[in-house]
Amino acid sequence: MAGCCAALAAFLFEYDTPRIVLIRSRKVGLMNRAVQLLILVYVIGWVFVWEKGYQETDSVVSSVTTKAKGVTVTNTSTLGFRIWDVADYVIPPQEENSLFVMTNMIITMNQTQGLCPEIPDRTTVCKSDADCVAGSTSTHSSGVATGGCVPFNETVKTCEVAAWCPVEYDAHVPKPALLKAAENFTLLVKNNIWYPKFNFSKRNILPNITTAHLKSCIYDAITDPFCPIFRLGKIVAHAGHSFQDMAVEGGIMGIQIKWNCNLDRAASLCLPRYSFRRLDTRDVDHNVSPGYNFRFAKYYNDLTGTEHRTLIKAYGIRFDIIVFGKAGKFDIIPTMINIGSGLALLGVATVLCDIIVLYCMKKRYYYREKKYKYVADYDQGLSSETDQ
Amino acid sequence: MAGCCAALAAFLFEYDTPRIVLIRSRKVGLMNRAVQLLILVYVIGWVFVWEKGYQETDSVVSSVTTKAKGVTVTNTSTLGFRIWDVADYVIPPQEENSLFVMTNMIITMNQTQGLCPEIPDRTTVCKSDADCVAGSTSTHSSGVATGGCVPFNETVKTCEVAAWCPVEYDAHVPKPALLKAAENFTLLVKNNIWYPKFNFSKRNILPNITTAHLKSCIYDAITDPFCPIFRLGKIVAHAGHSFQDMAVEGGIMGIQIKWNCNLDRAASLCLPRYSFRRLDTRDVDHNVSPGYNFRFAKYYNDLTGTEHRTLIKAYGIRFDIIVFGKAGKFDIIPTMINIGSGLALLGVATVLCDIIVLYCMKKRYYYREKKYKYVADYDQGLSSETDQ
Amino acid sequence: MAGCCAALAAFLFEYDTPRIVLIRSRKVGLMNRAVQLLILVYVIGWVFVWEKGYQETDSVVSSVTTKAKGVTVTNTSTLGFRIWDVADYVIPPQEENSLFVMTNMIITMNQTQGLCPEIPDRTTVCKSDADCVAGSTSTHSSGVATGGCVPFNETVKTCEVAAWCPVEYDAHVPKPALLKAAENFTLLVKNNIWYPKFNFSKRNILPNITTAHLKSCIYDAITDPFCPIFRLGKIVAHAGHSFQDMAVEGGIMGIQIKWNCNLDRAASLCLPRYSFRRLDTRDVDHNVSPGYNFRFAKYYNDLTGTEHRTLIKAYGIRFDIIVFGKAGKFDIIPTMINIGSGLALLGVATVLCDIIVLYCMKKRYYYREKKYKYVADYDQGLSSETDQ
Repeated sequence: MAGCCAALAAFLFEYDTPRIVLIRSRKVGLMNRAVQLLILVYVIGWVFVWEKGYQETDSVVSSVTTKAKGVTVTNTSTLGFRIWDVADYVIPPQEENSLFVMTNMIITMNQTQGLCPEIPDRTTVCKSDADCVAGSTSTHSSGVATGGCVPFNETVKTCEVAAWCPVEYDAHVPKPALLKAAENFTLLVKNNIWYPKFNFSKRNILPNITTAHLKSCIYDAITDPFCPIFRLGKIVAHAGHSFQDMAVEGGIMGIQIKWNCNLDRAASLCLPRYSFRRLDTRDVDHNVSPGYNFRFAKYYNDLTGTEHRTLIKAYGIRFDIIVFGKAGKFDIIPTMINIGSGLALLGVATVLCDIIVLYCMKKRYYYREKKYKYVADYDQGLSSETDQ
Repeated sequence: MAGCCAALAAFLFEYDTPRIVLIRSRKVGLMNRAVQLLILVYVIGWVFVWEKGYQETDSVVSSVTTKAKGVTVTNTSTLGFRIWDVADYVIPPQEENSLFVMTNMIITMNQTQGLCPEIPDRTTVCKSDADCVAGSTSTHSSGVATGGCVPFNETVKTCEVAAWCPVEYDAHVPKPALLKAAENFTLLVKNNIWYPKFNFSKRNILPNITTAHLKSCIYDAITDPFCPIFRLGKIVAHAGHSFQDMAVEGGIMGIQIKWNCNLDRAASLCLPRYSFRRLDTRDVDHNVSPGYNFRFAKYYNDLTGTEHRTLIKAYGIRFDIIVFGKAGKFDIIPTMINIGSGLALLGVATVLCDIIVLYCMKKRYYYREKKYKYVADYDQGLSSETDQ
Repeated sequence: MAGCCAALAAFLFEYDTPRIVLIRSRKVGLMNRAVQLLILVYVIGWVFVWEKGYQETDSVVSSVTTKAKGVTVTNTSTLGFRIWDVADYVIPPQEENSLFVMTNMIITMNQTQGLCPEIPDRTTVCKSDADCVAGSTSTHSSGVATGGCVPFNETVKTCEVAAWCPVEYDAHVPKPALLKAAENFTLLVKNNIWYPKFNFSKRNILPNITTAHLKSCIYDAITDPFCPIFRLGKIVAHAGHSFQDMAVEGGIMGIQIKWNCNLDRAASLCLPRYSFRRLDTRDVDHNVSPGYNFRFAKYYNDLTGTEHRTLIKAYGIRFDIIVFGKAGKFDIIPTMINIGSGLALLGVATVLCDIIVLYCMKKRYYYREKKYKYVADYDQGLSSETDQ
C-alpha cells in the first residue's frame, strides 16, 4: 500500500520531456525552419483559411414553391382561336420542387372506347386477318388487337384494336411549338432553407428587396442576381440552349440554387446563387423518347352518359428547382482534429531534416554521434556503447 | 550484397526510442499531469462520448406517403350547399413528399373562350380604343388585348381581352376561409427510412403501436409523441401560428421527422421525432404573392361541344414532410483518425510544459541544461559543446 | 534590438532533433518493426486503399424522368368492356421522382351532392332519428349527418348524410386486381446525375447503348444490368414480392439507383447500380390503411348544369426512384489529415515497445537507465542524478 502510494506520487510528481540535440548550423537550421514554415503555412492557410477546417458543416434542408405567370394565344385548325393561361399549361397545377410548363402538344379530340385501325407502322400494317393476333398487345400499341385487319385509309390496311378511338397519331410534332410564346412567361421561385444543426433559416427573397421591386424585377445574372422571378426564355438561354428548339420536344431545366454559407460571418452574407443547367442531355445517337413529354386526358360525359376524352400528349419544359449547399460554423471538434493532424505533420519536418542531416551531409557521422546513443544487449558485449 | 544484408539486419534488429529527461518536481510534475488529463478528458469525453467520434455516419433515405381524412360543408351564394371531401380538396390527389389541402378558394364558374372586358386596375382602365394596344399582354393580364375599350360596368370601361370569359376577379379572398373546418381534418403520415450504409430500415409506425390505437390516436407532443396521425390545426398550432389566419391565404407547413439513430444501441431506441415549422415566413414588407395558392380548372363540354371550365384559385396549406437525420455506428476508420488526433494532442501537453519549465521557471537554466545538448558545426569551433 | 536580432538568428540557425537511444536487440528490434509494419499496413491498406481516405467526397444531385408504357383491357359489370392506357392509369400524369400506376380501383359512378344513407358500420347504424346527431362528422364518415335515420336497404337503417351520393362502398377490394395486366407494363427511367463539387455529370442511358437496343431491352440484373427499361412485374419480383398480391391493395416500390463513383478512374467506370426494395413494409399486425391508395374524382356537368362526379379510390403501386451515392476524387486535405493521423499512430509503435522494453523485459533496469536521465529539483538534493 505504501509502495503503491509512493509509485503514484512518483507518477504524479514526475515530468518527462525528450532530450534534444540542438545543432547550431546555418544550413541545417534554415532548412529546418523552412520546412516547418511550409507545413505551418499549409495547415493554417489551406486547411483553416481556405477549406475552413475549423468548421462543422451541415447540409441544407429546403422548401420550394413556384408560380408561373403568362398568357398566350394559338390559332390552329383543330382548336381554332384559343387562349392558354396558367390553369391550362401547368400540369399538374402544383408540385413540390418542380413545375411543368406545356409548350407543345398533340391533341386527339373526342376519343371514345371502341374499335378502330391502328396507326400504320412496321408491325401493324396487315394484308388479312391472319396477320393480326387477337388479344395481342405490344409496348408501343394503342390498344388490344381484335384480330381483324381493317382499312386505315384508301391504300393501307392495319390491325384493328380495341382502344380509345380514334387512335393518337403522334408522328409529327408541331414545329414551331404551339405555345412558343412561353418564352416570355415568368416563374417566381420562393425558396426557404434551413440548416437544422445550426437552426439557421433564410429565404431567397432577401430582406432588402422591396415589394415594388419584386413586382417588376426579372432575374439577370449581372444586373439583378437576387431577383427570384425568372423569364423562361432566359433560364434556357443561361444554360446555353435555345428555348424555341427546346419547346418543340420538351426537356428538363435545372434551376440550381446554391446556399454556401459561412455562419461565422453575418447572416446577411449568406446569399443564394442561381445557376441553370439542362438536365436531359440530348444525344443525336440516343433519341429514345427525346425531350420530355407525357400523356394526360380530360374526360367528358355526353348526353347518353358515354365517356369521351380529349387525349393530350404534352411536350414541355419541366423546371426542377435543385437546392444544395453547405453551411459551416466554428466547432471545436474539427478544429482539434485538424490541429492534431497539423501537429503530427509538423513532426514530418524533423523527420525530413533528420534524413538530410544524418544521411546526406558531409558531417553526418559527427551529427549521428550526437543524436544517437548506441546500446547493445549487454550479454552481446557492451563494446558498441561508444556514446559519450 | 553482404553489406546490404548487414544493413537490413541492422535495421530490423534495431529499436530506437527517444531519450527522456525525467524531472522530479512536484510543481512541474503536477502541471504536466493536469494538462495531460485535460486533453485526455477532452478526447475521450467530448470526441468519443458526446460527439461519438468513433462512429461512421450515414444520411437517411426516406419514403413518405400521406393520407388526409375529413369532410366539411359550405353554404355560399355561388355554390349553394356543398359537401367537400378528400377527392375535392386534395390537389393533386397524390404527391411524393407533400400534400396540399385546399382551405379557401375563388371560383369562377362556367368560363368559355371569348372576348370580355378586363378587371379594372391601373393598367386596364381605358377611355377609348386608343388606350388599348391590340395583341399586348402583360404578366398580370388575364388574356390578350383585342385593342377595344368596352364597358366593364356602368361607370368603368376597360380594355377588351381574348380570354377565358368571364375573367377571374380575385381581389377579395373569402374571410374567414371557406373550408375553415379543415382545422379538424387529420393527416396520416407513413414514413419508411433506410440507412444504406448500414442496411437498416425502420417505419414511423412503431411495432409496439396496436392497430386499435392507430385507428383513434392523434399526435400530441407530450401524451402521444409517436402517433403518426396529425390534426391539421394542431400542426399549425405547434409551429406557433393560427390555423384560421393561415387558411385564408394559404401557406406551407413543414412536418419535420428527425431520425437520429445510434445503431450501436438497440434498434428499438431509434425513434422518429416530429417537429413543425412554417416554411413561408410572412413578412408584412414582402407580400408579393403571400401565402400559397395556385390555379387549376375543371373542363366540361356542353351539348354543342363547346369547352367550358370552372377556374379555381385554390388557397391552402401544403404540408411538406421533411425527413432528415443521421445514423452512427462504430467504425474503425473514424475511431483511428480520432485516436491519432488525440495522441498528437497529448504531445501538446509536453510542449506546453516545456515552455513553462524552460522559459518561465526560476530554475529554467538548470532544466535547459538537462534537456538540451548544444552542438555547433565543428568547423565553427566546438566550444559550445558544453553538455556533459 | 541587437539582442533581439541575436535571438532571431539563434532561432533561425538552430536545428533541434530528439536524442535517441538505439538499442541493438533482435527481440526488441523485430517487435518494434512488426508493430510499425502493422500500423503502416493499416494506414495504407485500410485507410487509403479500401476506404479511399485520400479522396474528397461529394453527394449526388439528381434529376429523374419516368415514362410508363402498356395498355390493357377490363370487362366488369359496372364499366363494361374498357381499355386502359397511360393517360388512364398514371395519376397524376407526371411527378418529379416517382410514378403511380393504378392497378386496382373502386369506382363510384355518377355521384351528385345530395342526401343519402351512410354505409352501415358500428357507428352509423341507427334505429331512429335520436341515434343520429345533426351536423356531426367523424374521421371516417362520408358526409355531414343531417340527423335523420333512413333505410339503407330493406333490413338496415343508417344515419342520413349530406354527401356526394351515392356514398362510396369500399369494403370489398376487387381480387384479383382489375388491372392485373400491369405486371407487363414497362417503365423507362431517365436519370441524370451531377456531382457539384467535381462538376461531373452522367446519365443512366450509357453512351455505349444503341438506340435499337434501348427500344427493345428490358432490365435484368444479370443479362442486361444497364437497360433503363423495367418490367413492372420484374421490379416487384426483384424485391421478393408478388406483383399480383401487391396489385390488389397497392404499395410503394423503391427503385434505388446507386452511383458510387471513383472519379480518379475513367468516367466510363462510373455506372448506375439498380436495386429494388418494397418501401411499405406490410405487417399483419398493423394494417391501418395497408398498401397504398388515394381517392380522386372526375367531374362532369349535366344538361341542367348540375355537377356530377365519378369517384375513384385508386389502389396502385407508386414507384419512387431513389438516387443516392458518393463520388470520390483525390484531394490534398483528407490525404494530409489521414497522413497526419497515420503518423501519430506510428508513434504508438514506440509507446507500445517502450512499455514492453521498460516494464516487462528482464533487462528493463538496464534499458531504463539508458533511456532516462533522472533530474531532481536541485534544492531537493542532486543525489538522484545518476545518469552519465
